[in-house]
Amino acid sequence: MKIGIFPHVQKQGISAVLGLVVQRLLERGAEVALPADAAEEMGYPELGVARERMLKEIAVAVTLGGDGTLLSTARVAAPFGIPVCGINMGQLGFLTEVEPSEVNQALDRLVAGQYSIEERLMLDASIFRQGKSIFVSSAVNDVVVTKGGFARMIRLNLYIDGQLTANYPADGLIIATPTGSTGYSLSAGGPIVSPGLKVIVLTPICPHTLHSRSLIVAETEEIKVTVYATHQDIVLTMDGQTVHALQPNDTIIVRRSRYRAKFIRFNRAGYYETVYTKLTAGR
Amino acid sequence: MKIGIFPHVQKQGISAVLGLVVQRLLERGAEVALPADAAEEMGYPELGVARERMLKEIAVAVTLGGDGTLLSTARVAAPFGIPVCGINMGQLGFLTEVEPSEVNQALDRLVAGQYSIEERLMLDASIFRQGKSIFVSSAVNDVVVTKGGFARMIRLNLYIDGQLTANYPADGLIIATPTGSTGYSLSAGGPIVSPGLKVIVLTPICPHTLHSRSLIVAETEEIKVTVYATHQDIVLTMDGQTVHALQPNDTIIVRRSRYRAKFIRFNRAGYYETVYTKLTAGR
Amino acid sequence: MKIGIFPHVQKQGISAVLGLVVQRLLERGAEVALPADAAEEMGYPELGVARERMLKEIAVAVTLGGDGTLLSTARVAAPFGIPVCGINMGQLGFLTEVEPSEVNQALDRLVAGQYSIEERLMLDASIFRQGKSIFVSSAVNDVVVTKGGFARMIRLNLYIDGQLTANYPADGLIIATPTGSTGYSLSAGGPIVSPGLKVIVLTPICPHTLHSRSLIVAETEEIKVTVYATHQDIVLTMDGQTVHALQPNDTIIVRRSRYRAKFIRFNRAGYYETVYTKLTAGR
Amino acid sequence: MKIGIFPHVQKQGISAVLGLVVQRLLERGAEVALPADAAEEMGYPELGVARERMLKEIAVAVTLGGDGTLLSTARVAAPFGIPVCGINMGQLGFLTEVEPSEVNQALDRLVAGQYSIEERLMLDASIFRQGKSIFVSSAVNDVVVTKGGFARMIRLNLYIDGQLTANYPADGLIIATPTGSTGYSLSAGGPIVSPGLKVIVLTPICPHTLHSRSLIVAETEEIKVTVYATHQDIVLTMDGQTVHALQPNDTIIVRRSRYRAKFIRFNRAGYYETVYTKLTAGR
Repeated sequence: MKIGIFPHVQKQGISAVLGLVVQRLLERGAEVALPADAAEEMGYPELGVARERMLKEIAVAVTLGGDGTLLSTARVAAPFGIPVCGINMGQLGFLTEVEPSEVNQALDRLVAGQYSIEERLMLDASIFRQGKSIFVSSAVNDVVVTKGGFARMIRLNLYIDGQLTANYPADGLIIATPTGSTGYSLSAGGPIVSPGLKVIVLTPICPHTLHSRSLIVAETEEIKVTVYATHQDIVLTMDGQTVHALQPNDTIIVRRSRYRAKFIRFNRAGYYETVYTKLTAGR
Repeated sequence: MKIGIFPHVQKQGISAVLGLVVQRLLERGAEVALPADAAEEMGYPELGVARERMLKEIAVAVTLGGDGTLLSTARVAAPFGIPVCGINMGQLGFLTEVEPSEVNQALDRLVAGQYSIEERLMLDASIFRQGKSIFVSSAVNDVVVTKGGFARMIRLNLYIDGQLTANYPADGLIIATPTGSTGYSLSAGGPIVSPGLKVIVLTPICPHTLHSRSLIVAETEEIKVTVYATHQDIVLTMDGQTVHALQPNDTIIVRRSRYRAKFIRFNRAGYYETVYTKLTAGR
Repeated sequence: MKIGIFPHVQKQGISAVLGLVVQRLLERGAEVALPADAAEEMGYPELGVARERMLKEIAVAVTLGGDGTLLSTARVAAPFGIPVCGINMGQLGFLTEVEPSEVNQALDRLVAGQYSIEERLMLDASIFRQGKSIFVSSAVNDVVVTKGGFARMIRLNLYIDGQLTANYPADGLIIATPTGSTGYSLSAGGPIVSPGLKVIVLTPICPHTLHSRSLIVAETEEIKVTVYATHQDIVLTMDGQTVHALQPNDTIIVRRSRYRAKFIRFNRAGYYETVYTKLTAGR
Repeated sequence: MKIGIFPHVQKQGISAVLGLVVQRLLERGAEVALPADAAEEMGYPELGVARERMLKEIAVAVTLGGDGTLLSTARVAAPFGIPVCGINMGQLGFLTEVEPSEVNQALDRLVAGQYSIEERLMLDASIFRQGKSIFVSSAVNDVVVTKGGFARMIRLNLYIDGQLTANYPADGLIIATPTGSTGYSLSAGGPIVSPGLKVIVLTPICPHTLHSRSLIVAETEEIKVTVYATHQDIVLTMDGQTVHALQPNDTIIVRRSRYRAKFIRFNRAGYYETVYTKLTAGR
């Protein structure tokens, strides 16, 4: 069984934790791989494998970092059907499964196959400019259309399965999966959505029409957003990580991805208990 | 084909509209029945049938009134599998399908069977006091646990499928179906939910903890609420219509009903367009 | 110097604390008085004075309890110009000044006159029924017009200095002082207002029109609310303590009181620091 | 009496309206001046005066455009004590006083001196970088610190008169005057503030801590914001018009300006009525 490790190489203390993780996995009889660049940087050149090849070889991905590291790994792992296990080295991980104190136990269970897999909706977004697709990308948490800092606002037309559903000036719009509902969407006033639900959450950012609210639609519905503005300071952001500049009159189409992110779960603490604990503790 | 008419007998102008509706249906060859008490009061004693018998005989129910009349009829019609068609005589009907100007056309299509049926989630709520069920009722829109006007607040424990999910002092809690998401739930800050989604929306009313938000859960999950208070001014309300007094330490269990409300639909205007039009017009 | 003590007689542990407070004050050379009924109940009959006489004799009032005890004492003390010092025996006191661990030090400073006085806006509310005033009362925190638990909603017309400012169906309306802005008003979505500002905060409770927001007006402006409903389940509540039943078409007029509540302050921790600490800790 | 006209030269239809305004004012015996650049562009070179000289000569400024034109003119006119009259050529002017149909009447009253002047709070903002002031500017509506579109979030420390009042990750912070409370601040969830009140409204934009709320402080209090981020995509925006790039660890200090914007008022329709009408109509 080959396990791929994806460390957040800039994270403080990553070196020590990575050492322990590698050692434990090898002791338990697993093979270990790291992306070649990270392997080089962290001092394990012998474990380095080119990223593309690695994804074809590993059975499981382990991330060392915060929710961001988990999200970026889950996105690339999803098309290969590889489940991902997040070890939390951040402050407050909503998505990471394993706290630092639980690492050894988690790794042992990982090697022993003692875990369950939770599938999470992913979204594909395409940008169409003058009728042509110019960008395609995926998100586990959210697709965000937003004005930049120098601009005043943008006007959005929102269509659900072809129906005009809203038309408002705003700072932007967040299109979130249930997984993403506890992220940026929550900051903008959106609801918390149970992660297994087959829905998408649409939440405007600072809408200039007071009647605008979060909208919950089926994950099978196509979401189309057309952007109007008199400036060019507009961006599309996926999971807060992938960013692409938009232009006025661009159309963004968001659909359910054919892949699902796979999160490894050991804990039997229920979702609601976990969210509640994290919300009251950390926010 | 027997069509049952359920008029809101106190509504202004009901008499004239009822007369036109009865005449049109008879002209089109339908049989017509009214609940005996309403038939008497409205001057059609010959059409009166006892309510229980009526629900066994009619193929379709037509309501004359607002959303409230539609809701109360839908609740009793659901166990008999009878679809309901709401003719709007109120100001702003989110749920009623037929505006006054469209009545004749709608009735003709009703008799001709030219309509579709939309099924909507219903909720069953039970009150348990000292371990015994003392009240059971159903709702199409929402189940609301709330303090009365004389009381200061109540403390709620919320369990989803047995997991403690929230614990807060508040004025109350709204447990809404997607149908009810555009009603009271929206006033309390809840999201708008597409009516076909298999979810339940939980929204606190004036929570005294600032981190409380709407929560979207699966319709298959059991919702349990325990109420704590030092007073007796607490009530359970179903669809804003059925009310039952609660006592401190009462437990309320809300589950998906085995029945679904059936709404007749003629219009092909999409849900999102309709909601958006009504929201921007009327609120 | 005579100090009046107003204990919350039902509070757990009140007896022990009261004993320590009385002893300390007497040791420091102060005279001590309790309301006759409380004095009797708590075992200090020799210190009991009729409430009305007491308010004419004492220089300072000390409350033992939570924010509620402080509010009710501040309301009656204000017309006599008596400053009030709240000793917190509740869980989270926004208004009480002295925590249990600081009692002795605070009492010593009280007797020594080492404190400052902070004046807080109070509101007078009158109910007019068919043109006649039928009820007048004062509030330190808020005046709330709200539907009861059995009712569906009420319609409110709001006039500021005679101008129609809002007209909406809602569960109710909160008219709060800056002091009250961290209470019920905050739960309903209102802003936090610096306590020295000469303003009043109006916040609707679950407004059925989505454009309704908190409104900040001058404390010198007259606020008039007319209530429309088809039921009689409406109440006026002052500070969550004084309650009076309303009827449809009643008019409520709220004006700045001629008196100000006087809060004794020892701590030099700033208001903003205090509120922030309490908000993040307790909510 | 010399009247300065400040047209929004790109506005559609501006040419015709400007012609009518100039003619009317001259007919009524007023002198008319335009900023030299605008005069040239609009075909009135003989009326052109250098902007700086113009502000020393005119008694009154008239703006032709929307709220934006009024704001930018009010900012430069304030230090010269010149009152400003906004003629609305936009869609929904909260601040402009004169609708297109009322122009002639308004100009006549302007020349006749039949108007009142309403003074509005202005804010001065300074950016301090490594202890040195690098930018100073004024705002009539709001000072906004916000992340740009490419960035994830920023962390803000907020101090009121030197007290640490809030510390949160967010998209940004809006520091608004009462005038600005119906603008961007409202979109971010802030309250509506009566324009004569001597207060400042602080409203976070998408705060990642759920307990964050709008805060109302005295206009005399100093507001200090320190920005933390791991990126450079941060901006300061004044009235949505003047923009300056910020860097991590920059400190922004906002204080009441020594000048007040002066708005000319003809209508005796009250503020509350006006706001309510505009809010329900346009939002």
